[in-house]
Amino acid sequence: MRAHQLIPSWLKNYQPKWLIGDAVAAILASMMLVPQALAYAALAGLPPYLGLYAGLLPLVGYALFGSSSVLSVGPVAILALMTASALTPIATPGSAEYINGAILLALLSGIMLLLMGFLGLGSLSNLLSLPVVNGFVSGAAVLIIAGQIAPLLGTKSEGHTALEILLSTIDNSPMSDPDAALMGLIALFSLVIARLGLPLLLRTLGVERTRAKLLSRLAPMLVVLLSIALTAIFHWEQDLPVVGEIPAGLPDFTLPVFNPTMIYQLLLPALIIALIGFVESLSVAHTIALRRGEKLDANAELRGLGTANLLSAFSGGFAVTGSFARTAVNDEAGARSPLSGVIAAIFIALVLLYATKVFTELPVCVLAATIIVAAANLIDLRALAHHWHYDRTDGLAMGGTLLGVILFGVEAGIGLGVGLSFATLIWRASRPHIAVVGRVPGTEHFRNVLRYTVKTQPDTLFLRIDENLFFSNISAIEDRLFAEVQRQKSLHDLVLILSSVNRIDSTAIERLQQVNQDLLERNIRLHLAEVKGPVLDRLGRSKLLQELTGRVFLSAYIAELALRHHNIHDDGQASTPPSPADPS
Amino acid sequence: MRAHQLIPSWLKNYQPKWLIGDAVAAILASMMLVPQALAYAALAGLPPYLGLYAGLLPLVGYALFGSSSVLSVGPVAILALMTASALTPIATPGSAEYINGAILLALLSGIMLLLMGFLGLGSLSNLLSLPVVNGFVSGAAVLIIAGQIAPLLGTKSEGHTALEILLSTIDNSPMSDPDAALMGLIALFSLVIARLGLPLLLRTLGVERTRAKLLSRLAPMLVVLLSIALTAIFHWEQDLPVVGEIPAGLPDFTLPVFNPTMIYQLLLPALIIALIGFVESLSVAHTIALRRGEKLDANAELRGLGTANLLSAFSGGFAVTGSFARTAVNDEAGARSPLSGVIAAIFIALVLLYATKVFTELPVCVLAATIIVAAANLIDLRALAHHWHYDRTDGLAMGGTLLGVILFGVEAGIGLGVGLSFATLIWRASRPHIAVVGRVPGTEHFRNVLRYTVKTQPDTLFLRIDENLFFSNISAIEDRLFAEVQRQKSLHDLVLILSSVNRIDSTAIERLQQVNQDLLERNIRLHLAEVKGPVLDRLGRSKLLQELTGRVFLSAYIAELALRHHNIHDDGQASTPPSPADPS
Repeated sequence: MRAHQLIPSWLKNYQPKWLIGDAVAAILASMMLVPQALAYAALAGLPPYLGLYAGLLPLVGYALFGSSSVLSVGPVAILALMTASALTPIATPGSAEYINGAILLALLSGIMLLLMGFLGLGSLSNLLSLPVVNGFVSGAAVLIIAGQIAPLLGTKSEGHTALEILLSTIDNSPMSDPDAALMGLIALFSLVIARLGLPLLLRTLGVERTRAKLLSRLAPMLVVLLSIALTAIFHWEQDLPVVGEIPAGLPDFTLPVFNPTMIYQLLLPALIIALIGFVESLSVAHTIALRRGEKLDANAELRGLGTANLLSAFSGGFAVTGSFARTAVNDEAGARSPLSGVIAAIFIALVLLYATKVFTELPVCVLAATIIVAAANLIDLRALAHHWHYDRTDGLAMGGTLLGVILFGVEAGIGLGVGLSFATLIWRASRPHIAVVGRVPGTEHFRNVLRYTVKTQPDTLFLRIDENLFFSNISAIEDRLFAEVQRQKSLHDLVLILSSVNRIDSTAIERLQQVNQDLLERNIRLHLAEVKGPVLDRLGRSKLLQELTGRVFLSAYIAELALRHHNIHDDGQASTPPSPADPS
Repeated sequence: MRAHQLIPSWLKNYQPKWLIGDAVAAILASMMLVPQALAYAALAGLPPYLGLYAGLLPLVGYALFGSSSVLSVGPVAILALMTASALTPIATPGSAEYINGAILLALLSGIMLLLMGFLGLGSLSNLLSLPVVNGFVSGAAVLIIAGQIAPLLGTKSEGHTALEILLSTIDNSPMSDPDAALMGLIALFSLVIARLGLPLLLRTLGVERTRAKLLSRLAPMLVVLLSIALTAIFHWEQDLPVVGEIPAGLPDFTLPVFNPTMIYQLLLPALIIALIGFVESLSVAHTIALRRGEKLDANAELRGLGTANLLSAFSGGFAVTGSFARTAVNDEAGARSPLSGVIAAIFIALVLLYATKVFTELPVCVLAATIIVAAANLIDLRALAHHWHYDRTDGLAMGGTLLGVILFGVEAGIGLGVGLSFATLIWRASRPHIAVVGRVPGTEHFRNVLRYTVKTQPDTLFLRIDENLFFSNISAIEDRLFAEVQRQKSLHDLVLILSSVNRIDSTAIERLQQVNQDLLERNIRLHLAEVKGPVLDRLGRSKLLQELTGRVFLSAYIAELALRHHNIHDDGQASTPPSPADPS
């Protein structure tokens, strides 16, 4: 990388008139970031102030290397949950070992993201289909909500699955703290009202739509500040669990303890965090880029997110990625360039330097309420209906991932989803669509006899196979082929149209050779038509072309012409030598 | 099933002139079966005489329900190895529990084969590609040979992998029995000479080729009888391990002890035994049926093999399937109907009733020699070269299975092979072939610009995607599409030719909608052409068709005509409403 490339192009081309938009957006986004940062750190099982550390330098890191102008990078609920789920089996939440583990996770996934960026391995994220990502996010949101009911009510819960957590919450509920429960529920109620009712109220008051939505996004900060004020005035901190002491000042440069056993245990979780974080962030950035007519560079995104995670680790934070909610605020509030991220970081730094005392008396139950409302927003059952409607197998993959995450946990759920999406893919390919086709009169086009009025021949059968031929579908293809042959008694010639066949594997080629022989027994010649170039190249390496009783035709139309002529003049003797034409 | 169907059709139509061929073939095949049965039972870790039990009733069971006229069903080396590999971790070889386990395995796989036959689930065997089956057989043969070196040399070996077994054989070799080693090596040498040299010798003596091959197949029986005679004459049984007492008489009807834990542990091995046995047997039967112009029925094969295994279990035997070598002998010796199997069973019954004493003095090292020669014949490195040459991924699947079986054992090897064959399938589909196409002048055909001299347009790009669109390849497709768009500056219209696309999943459809928007930003309209019926049906459930900036054309040719006309008269404004035509 050349030296001048270290200065990002947005900075070189910065126009002063952008400053106001960037600054306003930055302040609004950080008003949202502060309570979220505290809450998501708690969700990750970490001291809340570590969320502010994770919300500081990553903003700058992304601004240096990322390609989206308004993506807001920092702590998000899903990665906080994944951090907790990776660490709770191997360390006690809140312990020094646990905090070290969280830093290691951020470091590892940062390194992985950078590697993917430099090696062009962003395609790894293609293992995750949209239904799997949707199902994962919805399932993780359910898991998050299940885990926050206990802190909301001022009690404890344990367990790894949503069911275990909910059952233990119910078991522990007699010990719950009525003050905390009341305050938590009031906070929850206010936040729900603010999200659902406030935009409507503001709009009836004449506030413009985008602005109304924007203002309602600041409700969590308001509720947080109000609860702090009330707690301070009435000294509720003696009865309620509060966030407690936050060390004032900027984070120190930190290096985690490199514990090899722990690193080994965290490799897979870090990879999943990197992939999920990347996919989520990319989809947010892409939506915005599309609206703004900007160009997004997946590799730049990987480098930006990788740097953000490294900086989070070096400043003692945890894994971060692009936040959907804060990016939306940034966008709606008129940010023009990544400078808004840098300004937001300065705002967070000011909070850390001068305002940490404010948040010490923030009740934990209020944080839980903000997490629940944020997570509820991530549950997307409409996506489930949409995928199911579009294709049952896509619906199955999303439903399976969702249930997997809820019932078996974060990683098992992802594993199940990826497995399901590949299994259904292969299942579909194993049941290929095969059409008997005929020529559309007056054209050279051959179409399905069931969908079109077409011309067919009594002694020539045209079969189009709509799938690659490989070991798990070749039996089904054979069965269908012989069933059609059985049906048409006076058959002399069978033409397989391979226009949709992009690959034939060695199992299928072996079976086709047998089919060729079996048809010869019945005095039927086998022809191929519309064979693709790469397929024909490969066929040349097998014995099929030499043994083929019929010919290879450039198109079904040419096959029809040749065979009609042949059958009239030649009385259909199966003696034409194979003469491969050159199709595309 | 109606009553008269219980009498197989070959029996109803039996012609007396077939009898001589059937009888001669039966006697030759059982001459081969007797030493193999004893040897494979030993290979399975069972008392050798159980091999004779497994070689008796299964022949009759298959004759009743199977569809091949000459398939010889009974003990085979591969299933013997799989029996040993499934049972050694859970019982001591030779113990009552172990024998019970072997009977349970035969029973379970018999039930599974029958279920597959009645439920039409024979397609389960489609999970096994040809390279995986080839690799498995070769790998298992190596494993068998590794395990037989110790008995050949009169010593012991332990371990599960080929390497462990060989190392322990070398460790134990100082304790080997020089008498046994000498006799074993002489037997091995004679058998190799018989297999390689005898046919040649017989042919130079004027014996016809098939007959020479046939006679050389009887060499093992000769070597066995000779070794028995020598042992009896010189009383070597005092120095050499011999087969020992064989209970005279036919097997009793047996039911295994139904130990639920053991049944649970054997479910997966039984399924793999059923599938491998079925695939192997079917391929043998198919080769013969093709040569004889017979019709093979996969479901009848499942019922035949299932019954054979049940009868093996009920008579105290182990898992059986069609034997390649004995079927070949049966075929070459002129068998005409399954009666040859029934006659062979009678021959085995006579051996069990009157000739068991003969085999008590058969040295174990000679059995080992016959197993080694039979297994060596199964190693097929030419298949590896063939698959690798045809397609690297097929070669990889075979090589992976082979190495997997040798290094990690039978089931792990199969698992690795199946995993590899699916993984390479998906890997290939993730790197789709995409061609820029143009019209072949004077025709309506569009072909790859790199392979043909074709006509292209400066303002219209025709792209043909040769793969289904799904989550793991849509990124690659997007990248290629935008790279082509970048290359052609004056572009107004992009036509995606979907003639090879049989499915578009919901991830891909979502991304195509974004592509449609992205192209709109650049003032390029997106058109689709040659969309298949089922694909178009599904597209109708998404928003793509409504949002599409271009049109859906029946063919690329029609698209070219329409767009040329349009661009001349309409100055290329992106305003034509989508009007889906009806393609096939």
